[in-house]
Amino acid sequence: MKNTLLVKNVLHDGRKTNILVEGNRFRNMAAPEETVADKVIDAQGKAILPPFFNTHTHAAMSLLRGYADDMPLFKWLSEYIWPFENKMTSHDIYEGSKLAVREMIKSGSVFFNDMYFDLEETVRAVDESGMRAALGVTFVESHSKSQQEDKLQMLRHWNDPTGGRIQLTVAPHAIYTVSDELFRKCAETAHEMNLKLHVHLSETAKEVEDCVREHGMTPVRYLDSLGVLGPNVIAAHVVHVDREEMDILAERGVTISHCPCSNMKLASGVFKAKQLIDAGCKITIGTDGDSSNNNQDMREEMKFAALLAKMSSGDPETLPADEAFRWATAAGAEAFDIDSGVIAQGKLADFILVDLNDERMRPCHHLVSNWVYSADTSAIDKVVCDGKVIYEK
Amino acid sequence: MKNTLLVKNVLHDGRKTNILVEGNRFRNMAAPEETVADKVIDAQGKAILPPFFNTHTHAAMSLLRGYADDMPLFKWLSEYIWPFENKMTSHDIYEGSKLAVREMIKSGSVFFNDMYFDLEETVRAVDESGMRAALGVTFVESHSKSQQEDKLQMLRHWNDPTGGRIQLTVAPHAIYTVSDELFRKCAETAHEMNLKLHVHLSETAKEVEDCVREHGMTPVRYLDSLGVLGPNVIAAHVVHVDREEMDILAERGVTISHCPCSNMKLASGVFKAKQLIDAGCKITIGTDGDSSNNNQDMREEMKFAALLAKMSSGDPETLPADEAFRWATAAGAEAFDIDSGVIAQGKLADFILVDLNDERMRPCHHLVSNWVYSADTSAIDKVVCDGKVIYEK
Repeated sequence: MKNTLLVKNVLHDGRKTNILVEGNRFRNMAAPEETVADKVIDAQGKAILPPFFNTHTHAAMSLLRGYADDMPLFKWLSEYIWPFENKMTSHDIYEGSKLAVREMIKSGSVFFNDMYFDLEETVRAVDESGMRAALGVTFVESHSKSQQEDKLQMLRHWNDPTGGRIQLTVAPHAIYTVSDELFRKCAETAHEMNLKLHVHLSETAKEVEDCVREHGMTPVRYLDSLGVLGPNVIAAHVVHVDREEMDILAERGVTISHCPCSNMKLASGVFKAKQLIDAGCKITIGTDGDSSNNNQDMREEMKFAALLAKMSSGDPETLPADEAFRWATAAGAEAFDIDSGVIAQGKLADFILVDLNDERMRPCHHLVSNWVYSADTSAIDKVVCDGKVIYEK
Repeated sequence: MKNTLLVKNVLHDGRKTNILVEGNRFRNMAAPEETVADKVIDAQGKAILPPFFNTHTHAAMSLLRGYADDMPLFKWLSEYIWPFENKMTSHDIYEGSKLAVREMIKSGSVFFNDMYFDLEETVRAVDESGMRAALGVTFVESHSKSQQEDKLQMLRHWNDPTGGRIQLTVAPHAIYTVSDELFRKCAETAHEMNLKLHVHLSETAKEVEDCVREHGMTPVRYLDSLGVLGPNVIAAHVVHVDREEMDILAERGVTISHCPCSNMKLASGVFKAKQLIDAGCKITIGTDGDSSNNNQDMREEMKFAALLAKMSSGDPETLPADEAFRWATAAGAEAFDIDSGVIAQGKLADFILVDLNDERMRPCHHLVSNWVYSADTSAIDKVVCDGKVIYEK
């Protein structure tokens, strides 16, 4: 017998209804008033919306929030971030992951795609939280052959302690920290084991210049020449790409994780939203780590994405609210083959309840516009992941 | 005998202290533990910070939140905003102002500079709220001579029902809605009565082109030729200005109200933060109305201002957190001659208490960085204006 949860009097698609969850899936989107359930939530005055899927972050870097701001990338990395990270213990990574996870849940995310070290610590934090994650087994050239072999073994023999909420990814860090040989091995492993491959790509102008100097081609062309790009690839940032590279990304079915706050704060460059949309690229949204954002708030990130797209294209019609919302929700779930991201019968029961009486949700001419452009996390009443309430205000 | 308020165990400038407020001013920044006061707040685990001064908005437009998004400016104005506004009653303006005021207070603002119609309704909302405001007596050419004369009479004979929290401003709407004759009369009236003058300026490329066609010069030069520009002028937007116009604005001591969200959402253009700073211009921050933002959240607006400045200049050192914070607080207070915006003995007791245990305020390597880049309004515990608590979580 499965657990049941009844969400009563909730606004869904413009109508008030009762929604029945059975186990971890939506069972009935118009359940009768008298439905009996193990748990009942009265959602009077609240709307049900899909939660966020954060497609690029480094959770444990919450410990570096505000540690180094307002400085050039190389100085930031070499004088502040790397020396700090060198002193971080496994326990720190657990604590940092816990803090980020709390921050994410409170701001309406049920999933994040992570790249960091000491994976087991982040697994533990996710397991305890009740949320979902894709956690990267990170590859960098500076690790020894035996360390890299250990990582491959971990991928082969890993068991998900959450029973389905965590997937591992193969995560070669970036083209400037991973050799072509190691990239090929990562791609092979990902294909062989049917895993996603998570990589930083074309984040800065310097990355592109160095790549052209070293490999005689730009980063997207370079990774494509190695056979890395495919529909299992999640490429973070993708700021500096030309028109032909956009076509390559679209053709290979690569998912882009757009991180507007990080790109703007580090002055990495301007994401070409309109051209990437026109090229047919798959786009999702990520917060990046707290050291360069400085939070994990996907609601804020959606607003940045939408406003930046309008500004950079000079066209206020670019990336309307509904599409920015889709990038931050359904598109993220889809990229990781998670049967969620929309509120519909049979889908995984991941959702948030948003308070329609919050000042910033009123008046309600257009619910999604209010959520994207106006609200903040204080309008979130509850967050449900996999059929379980993981946050209540 | 004045009312006293003791704020105990509060973090101020990196140290824990007790702060005594007497009447509406800070009396002692290091009061003894045993100080007796009419009201005591235990601020253990909280920091005291200056609240926000929002230097450009249209409060009552909260009623148009989400009514029309993601469309070009002229279509937005002519097909949606103006027809909606034509149907608004005085009561609507009161209700809209009330909603905006609640939204502002909850997000840490104690002051806004407004431009709208039916001023008395907004006066009433501000009076009831306990916050401060500068409310514009709006002049547009389409009003009749007798309407304009009534407005001048109102400026001359107005009594502030709040006893000092409200100032009126002379608010000629913009160069495309106000003639040179009316602009001159507005400027004279403002000088004569020692009032601020609030105007939209150089918001869009079209405004500049039309001005050059009609007057043979750009908007800043045009207003300067009319003798309008001076240290009492608050100019909203100021997006499309050349280097010489920046020098004129700096020389005349004009205060710019930078509205990053509105400019980005309407794709009005890119604010030239770095050049304006280099030219020595006075800059503050405004949210603009809820119809083009779509909220009144100055914390979010600070982050947009800082990140946009870095992105547009290509330099992550542009507009560091402390300076963005100063624009949103002290610089705004100064522009309106309000003896507030900093937490110091003798200043008006306007402040917020921020919860240092909020996930997004931790760890606390740099308090102001956390506040500008990471937090949201859910970290606000209390808002105090003029010595009185006007919001408690």
